[in-house]
Amino acid sequence: MSQARLMDGTALARRIVEETAERTADLTARTGTTPCLATVLVGEDPASVTYVRMKQNRCRTAGIASRHVALPADTTTADLVGTLRALSADPAVHGILLQHPMGRHIDERAAFEAIAPEKDVDGVTFASFATMSFGLPGFVSCTPGGIMRLLDAYGVDPAGKRAVVVGRSAILGKPAGMLLLARDATVTYCHSRTADLSAAVREADIVVAAVGRPRLIRGQDLKPGAVVVDAGYNEGNVGDVDFASAVERASLITPVPGGVGPMTIATLLEQTVTAAARQLGA
Amino acid sequence: MSQARLMDGTALARRIVEETAERTADLTARTGTTPCLATVLVGEDPASVTYVRMKQNRCRTAGIASRHVALPADTTTADLVGTLRALSADPAVHGILLQHPMGRHIDERAAFEAIAPEKDVDGVTFASFATMSFGLPGFVSCTPGGIMRLLDAYGVDPAGKRAVVVGRSAILGKPAGMLLLARDATVTYCHSRTADLSAAVREADIVVAAVGRPRLIRGQDLKPGAVVVDAGYNEGNVGDVDFASAVERASLITPVPGGVGPMTIATLLEQTVTAAARQLGA
Repeated sequence: MSQARLMDGTALARRIVEETAERTADLTARTGTTPCLATVLVGEDPASVTYVRMKQNRCRTAGIASRHVALPADTTTADLVGTLRALSADPAVHGILLQHPMGRHIDERAAFEAIAPEKDVDGVTFASFATMSFGLPGFVSCTPGGIMRLLDAYGVDPAGKRAVVVGRSAILGKPAGMLLLARDATVTYCHSRTADLSAAVREADIVVAAVGRPRLIRGQDLKPGAVVVDAGYNEGNVGDVDFASAVERASLITPVPGGVGPMTIATLLEQTVTAAARQLGA
Repeated sequence: MSQARLMDGTALARRIVEETAERTADLTARTGTTPCLATVLVGEDPASVTYVRMKQNRCRTAGIASRHVALPADTTTADLVGTLRALSADPAVHGILLQHPMGRHIDERAAFEAIAPEKDVDGVTFASFATMSFGLPGFVSCTPGGIMRLLDAYGVDPAGKRAVVVGRSAILGKPAGMLLLARDATVTYCHSRTADLSAAVREADIVVAAVGRPRLIRGQDLKPGAVVVDAGYNEGNVGDVDFASAVERASLITPVPGGVGPMTIATLLEQTVTAAARQLGA
């Protein structure tokens, strides 16, 4: 059997960032206002610092301004909510990214809900989850949104297909399933309590692995010719899919790294410019 | 093979209404305030008029006050939103039921979102959908919430089971699937674009039919011993399940009528008292 074709997230993300840069330049020229993403970081977790810096750098590449708000690790929920409300009300800020996790003493949900839905370019609010779920206009969670873009770019139409999402987190698994459902896939959510994961995965024309368990899905679990999207990211650049065996059985597969990962930031930038255009009425 | 046991929604709903009446009496005695449900109806659609009257009557049975707001059929979205915001801000109103459908000229979503989440006892807002989906405290959509109560009452634990929800409406299919997922079922959403509905349904330990197509699910589609919840309600008191053949194959099944139907209002009343207790700090 021939090997699966790779879904190249790095290349697609690059194209999206280039398009976003053009939209940004055009919007800035027409309105005199540069789209601005506010990044909010609580504490100094090294991975979070790195992620935020990557997002800021990519903003710069696309011509999007960023405003960084660094809060001390002992920031209270009330203070964080206050900061996010102020950014939500600030007309110079068009999108808000709250880096998470934020530390155990913070009520993350209260923080997310302090982000105005029209600036929720990371797709973390209740309103964004609901609009994704109901197929209404709004912002999508960036990684699930990036997954849908990858499928589109490689000609995978979810309509009528069996899709299995492994994982049910609020910002990855659940919204990924809802976006696939909105595109008319027959969607199954699997998770740690699923009795026979292999049997469920074997039904799938499209598999989205989003659970954070290294190499959980193996080639033998796949229906031959399945489309495999690995949104897992574990230590040592290992995904949730055992790439070596899966590539022999899938028709399309995302590598890790270079698959889903780059799409997340690309979606964030794209949504930031869209948010700015809407807020500027342009 | 023996026939399935019936899940008696009429009897369970009666017990819930009795318990709710006791809680209402206790709350009223302790706070001096009678819990109050506002019912809002746009126009005079006969079915809607009947539904609202049933809900008011059942409120009375449980000792819950109701305040009816009848709006003319040509009410604008802006006026309806204004009415709902006023009820949301009125401390004498603890729960709000907006009867739907409301007519094509109304933006139903804008209307729903004008209901304060803490008074959304019918579970129709974005916030309620998200809290259901994320397993957070909040109000559930009444029919899906009633389905979960029925399963609990008959000792059906969804954890680790395969559940198939047929239908994906915003207030029935989607939230029913999310509630089952929150209770650790492996959940599959099927719908009009599902390629092989029978095959998907046959995987299910628990089937929730919520699509509004008379007798769509037949006995031969079921895994022997499946638990069948028929939330369909079609002309002539016919459900989405072909009862005669399904009862021969299922282990538990809801009749239509007398299954899911009565649970919807019971859940509405129960949530109204809960809302009142929270708002009264009691």
